[in-house]
Amino acid sequence: MDAKPLSSLQELVQSLKLLPGVGPKSAQRMAWHLLQHDREGALRLSNALSDAVSKVTHCLCCNTFTEGEICETCRDRTRDASLLCVTETPADQNIIEQTLAYKGYYFVLMGSLSPLDGVGPKEIHLDRLIKRATDGLVKEVILATGFSNEGEATAHYIGEMLKERGIAVTRLARGVPVGAELEYVDVGTVARALLDRRKS
Amino acid sequence: MDAKPLSSLQELVQSLKLLPGVGPKSAQRMAWHLLQHDREGALRLSNALSDAVSKVTHCLCCNTFTEGEICETCRDRTRDASLLCVTETPADQNIIEQTLAYKGYYFVLMGSLSPLDGVGPKEIHLDRLIKRATDGLVKEVILATGFSNEGEATAHYIGEMLKERGIAVTRLARGVPVGAELEYVDVGTVARALLDRRKS
Repeated sequence: MDAKPLSSLQELVQSLKLLPGVGPKSAQRMAWHLLQHDREGALRLSNALSDAVSKVTHCLCCNTFTEGEICETCRDRTRDASLLCVTETPADQNIIEQTLAYKGYYFVLMGSLSPLDGVGPKEIHLDRLIKRATDGLVKEVILATGFSNEGEATAHYIGEMLKERGIAVTRLARGVPVGAELEYVDVGTVARALLDRRKS
Repeated sequence: MDAKPLSSLQELVQSLKLLPGVGPKSAQRMAWHLLQHDREGALRLSNALSDAVSKVTHCLCCNTFTEGEICETCRDRTRDASLLCVTETPADQNIIEQTLAYKGYYFVLMGSLSPLDGVGPKEIHLDRLIKRATDGLVKEVILATGFSNEGEATAHYIGEMLKERGIAVTRLARGVPVGAELEYVDVGTVARALLDRRKS
């Protein structure tokens, strides 16, 4: 016997389950909420999804999400072309922008090396990063990948590749977070902060 | 100065925040996941949303979500027309169906009385429920609203209205859950189970 085709309500619940972190109960609650209380919002979300899928691509220059060929940041000619900051995600890039402490350009990997999940150098576009970093203008590449195992491995791998090509490579400092009480910081972080101590 | 129009990525994040239980961080993570790893899923969700909004309406008979005028349950002529079970949501109706212990019809309120939130008798379609319950066939109305304050108040209100009209009204039994150890059940429930004790 063939499976009965899903009703549009069932199909909506199934599709909502595609969202990360949404299980069957939440999907049902979301479907119910949209249909009962916010049909306008459901249509808005529907349009936003198809719109984003058709319009959002990757910046040819820094690989972040953008709508044109080149993103706004890469088009900003007032930035310091000698600095290139490498992040894992657009969200990480945002955080660095919010510090107002950086005025160079970016390269967004859209992931981190994770061979077990099938994410190798090609999947995070290292060929393009190398090309970007060796354009003759970039003097320093700042590795701002995360401090998870994958982030560290990615930073190490990229660092080695760039150093071979004579590019100066730096890594975000590790240390005690601003505002933290020492006794509540994990020992590894304090050890790192001791090793990386600086003249004050 | 006018606000800059949202990019399609920003609009997607804003729209995802319309989903219940989704804050800015989750919305960003969802948008990123869909655009980076599951564009097909994003389109599927987009279609499911617009499809459901255009097709899903309320059953003219029992008020639950359905695609035609009358839902499958109400069209099932093998059911016992003397029984009408009142639930708050389609999910509650599902649970009762799953028990296989009930073979009558339903009325789904799509909510519960909550005057402070602006949900009065009209919003939960009590006029239609009264009409449905006084069709001459219904002999007993089973109130299966929840046991929250709102659910109890709703059951009480509906019960009074129906009793005035000479309809027999029953309420789901309260008591100790199946499989529960007495010492871990809250005192109110045990008290209720004592009061409602039955001959064995």
